[in-house]
Amino acid sequence: MGKVRVAGFSLSFDGFGAGPGQSLENPLGLGGRDLHKWFYPTRTFRAMIGEEGGIDDPFAQRSAQGFGAFIIGRNMFGPVRGDWPDESWRGWWGDNPPYHAPTFVLTNHVRAPLVMAGGTTFYFVTTGIDQALKQAQAAAGDLDVKIGGGVATVRQFLRAQAVDEIHLAMSPVLLGRGESLFAGLDLPRLGYRLTEVVPTALATHLVLTR
Amino acid sequence: MGKVRVAGFSLSFDGFGAGPGQSLENPLGLGGRDLHKWFYPTRTFRAMIGEEGGIDDPFAQRSAQGFGAFIIGRNMFGPVRGDWPDESWRGWWGDNPPYHAPTFVLTNHVRAPLVMAGGTTFYFVTTGIDQALKQAQAAAGDLDVKIGGGVATVRQFLRAQAVDEIHLAMSPVLLGRGESLFAGLDLPRLGYRLTEVVPTALATHLVLTR
Repeated sequence: MGKVRVAGFSLSFDGFGAGPGQSLENPLGLGGRDLHKWFYPTRTFRAMIGEEGGIDDPFAQRSAQGFGAFIIGRNMFGPVRGDWPDESWRGWWGDNPPYHAPTFVLTNHVRAPLVMAGGTTFYFVTTGIDQALKQAQAAAGDLDVKIGGGVATVRQFLRAQAVDEIHLAMSPVLLGRGESLFAGLDLPRLGYRLTEVVPTALATHLVLTR
Repeated sequence: MGKVRVAGFSLSFDGFGAGPGQSLENPLGLGGRDLHKWFYPTRTFRAMIGEEGGIDDPFAQRSAQGFGAFIIGRNMFGPVRGDWPDESWRGWWGDNPPYHAPTFVLTNHVRAPLVMAGGTTFYFVTTGIDQALKQAQAAAGDLDVKIGGGVATVRQFLRAQAVDEIHLAMSPVLLGRGESLFAGLDLPRLGYRLTEVVPTALATHLVLTR
């Protein structure tokens, strides 16, 4: 069985993984786009959007490779809250989402699986994170499962001590408000240790392992 | 008049400026000493303790030079809480504290000034941070005033928008618990901007200015 990883997860230096006020216009909340500035110029990101070139960045590569399934929270799938009014919302990413693998969406609201182009199928899991993880691991086989986000989802899995490795990209930004990753979360007590610290020109990369 | 600065203030990557459980044995709280590992090998620190050698570090130098007065919280002065039982506690630092200038201690409990060796006099200010700052600025003249810490004191001055420059040394440590600098503090809204990010082998240095 592969590992369970959080990877390429961007944080401001004051600890926010998303800005406040997520909306259709601001999927990452106010100021949230700035958290990912380290990622946009990388070869990895440019390949994801069908472009060539860009700078090599081993952390960007690690954050995108080796995953056989994804788990994301409902807010990371879209801005719809409560019951699904219809099936029209199909994610933020257009017809061909960047997952290219089974992707399990945590939600309290039942919805049929959604098959997208490029190998992504969204499965809507209403039975909690343990079940989502079991299904994702079964789907991933020997590959890793990525806990994609957002902050609330990552915190749930960290608290459950279900993550083997977390790569955080601390970005040169202060947000002041938003979704805090660390608030009330005692990572050392949960068994996570800081095992790599690698500053680059665009971010300070931290790896925590358990 | 000089600037008001926080400088050489060490934080864990999860945002704590001190560990939990400050005591006589752990002046910086549990795990708090690790926050300052970047500082101990520097020439600046070694000179402070009367040793030669060490590595050059411009941020360590900036954090120690140019100050004509200091303001510190009562817990940074010592572990005594409530009324002063007597005058026997004279700070954590022995007879010759590292300030070498007038040092204003915020407290609710009146105490006479305490003249130490090496130019440090501790003045105990019971009339709030505005008064402490006025007295410190008068004492400092053209030199800067340093808000020395701890976390609660720094937060008070940041919230009062009374700090011109803050240098934080993000240390490769996770504490999990302790005194959080950022919690509930919207620094961008208070007018602070991230103006420098300089990673070194031992810490990632951030400078915020207002």
